[in-house]
Amino acid sequence: MNFADQLIHRIQATQNPVCVGLDPRLKNLPEALRASIDPSCAESIAAGFETFCKEILDVVANRVPVVKPQSAFFEALGFPGSRALANVVNYAKTKKVLVLLDAKRGDIGSTAEAYAQAYIGDAGSHGIQADALTVNPYMGVDTLEPFVKACQANNKGMFVLVKTSNPGSGHFQDKRLTTDKTGSATLHELVAAEVETLSGNTLGSHAYGSVGAVVGATYPEELGELRKKMPRTIFLIPGFGAQGGGAQDVMPGFDSRGLGAIVNSSRGIIFAYENPQFQANGDWQASVELACQKMTDELSLNRIQRQ
Amino acid sequence: MNFADQLIHRIQATQNPVCVGLDPRLKNLPEALRASIDPSCAESIAAGFETFCKEILDVVANRVPVVKPQSAFFEALGFPGSRALANVVNYAKTKKVLVLLDAKRGDIGSTAEAYAQAYIGDAGSHGIQADALTVNPYMGVDTLEPFVKACQANNKGMFVLVKTSNPGSGHFQDKRLTTDKTGSATLHELVAAEVETLSGNTLGSHAYGSVGAVVGATYPEELGELRKKMPRTIFLIPGFGAQGGGAQDVMPGFDSRGLGAIVNSSRGIIFAYENPQFQANGDWQASVELACQKMTDELSLNRIQRQ
Repeated sequence: MNFADQLIHRIQATQNPVCVGLDPRLKNLPEALRASIDPSCAESIAAGFETFCKEILDVVANRVPVVKPQSAFFEALGFPGSRALANVVNYAKTKKVLVLLDAKRGDIGSTAEAYAQAYIGDAGSHGIQADALTVNPYMGVDTLEPFVKACQANNKGMFVLVKTSNPGSGHFQDKRLTTDKTGSATLHELVAAEVETLSGNTLGSHAYGSVGAVVGATYPEELGELRKKMPRTIFLIPGFGAQGGGAQDVMPGFDSRGLGAIVNSSRGIIFAYENPQFQANGDWQASVELACQKMTDELSLNRIQRQ
Repeated sequence: MNFADQLIHRIQATQNPVCVGLDPRLKNLPEALRASIDPSCAESIAAGFETFCKEILDVVANRVPVVKPQSAFFEALGFPGSRALANVVNYAKTKKVLVLLDAKRGDIGSTAEAYAQAYIGDAGSHGIQADALTVNPYMGVDTLEPFVKACQANNKGMFVLVKTSNPGSGHFQDKRLTTDKTGSATLHELVAAEVETLSGNTLGSHAYGSVGAVVGATYPEELGELRKKMPRTIFLIPGFGAQGGGAQDVMPGFDSRGLGAIVNSSRGIIFAYENPQFQANGDWQASVELACQKMTDELSLNRIQRQ
């Protein structure tokens, strides 16, 4: 089944569009787990990250449609980290939750093909078998095409950076372009137009395509503008929670059916036991469950549809 | 020693600015090596890639200043590939050649810090200990800063994508921006100006900084323009050889001392045994040596200085 359809089915089954970001950091792990790790040993940290992410998945996998491991934190551990990441992805897939790998890859020609094989490859691929991958567009539309082909061939998805959640995202992305036609657009609007075209070539049965866009919760105005300009494109909305975005900020990213976006929270859920609001007698998984429940309530499909 | 100075010392010691790209591909490996590999087994391919790259290094490490492993081809093998990459990088370092990892990473805040630790980290890092890393600027200047800090703290280098070598690089990079000031610049010129500023904060004793720029050999006009606008920035020039760039095309990238750029060739050197021009009685390493010699002759420091 087309990735967009898989994602929408999961959103409908769980009745929310929440994406839980798996961003393990040694200093934030639950105390008992951290105490068992030798911080001088990459294998030991990687084993701790793997355990932590699997235990998060035990709580959230049947509550949310999709999880988003952040590759950087695993890569920082060298190949033991890469192995742990593969194990986490495989574990998630046994739980039926979709896996969007956040790796922001991008390159030209056959190198882009290698990245696609690495993360959203065919069944014979030796890489990590994620369901979707984040991709960086700076090098040009021709460098996105190998990823689009992989999505089409393997029923996978991709999310192209359009308007990112960081404070300085406007530095390049909001620059206004002169064009040969009347008027002008910003860089992120130009990228958005290209992504919308690519998405149209990967449509599923719900009128959304498998080529999505990353648009930050921290820019609600742009989110609403882009929703209008990209009717076939599913948004990955980061920046909820720890980065400052709230439920009202992400509402412009949805269509009238309550579809069209997934909203990511990482620290706010996975490290919920650090938040006095979600204390649960020292049971860190119960804290994660409380935080996940709060976010799925705030962003329930019912509530979004009523907005 | 500052990375820019390390690189210039190596260029002066080898009397050329050639960078050999390590882009292993199963179908192109020497026949005897390929025959020993089980293509259904990632560990077997990874071991073959490692052997191949080490044997390339045996030929080129004392002839060129720097090598550039392409992370994508290793990542496509999953964690056995990541381990092979780490082994190749460590082997290169025993040979004293500098290692520029081509991974085109980019992300925000603490995630960018994790990528920096993964590839250009401090001595206690668990990641791959490269000397420099390619970085993608799309997300904004604030997302480059964690990499710059790592360069400053650890005597490492980074090369930011500015004008890439692919046919479609102009799609976004050449778009002209409206500015508040008089006149306008293209996106890649704006990125270039930011990179030049960052490079100025990382200057070594040769008036070049450790923050470099990627500018393709396939765009010689832009290369010359950017050389004038970025006097402190070292260029990584890909696109030589297989992608179509020749010695004359890259000359605008150098200063009058013959410094300021490194020129990468991957396929043209490492798969030289496929080229009738470099046959050597079936000795594939001798073919690699011939191709490397030809490129170092074409781009000898003497010859560049005479241009």
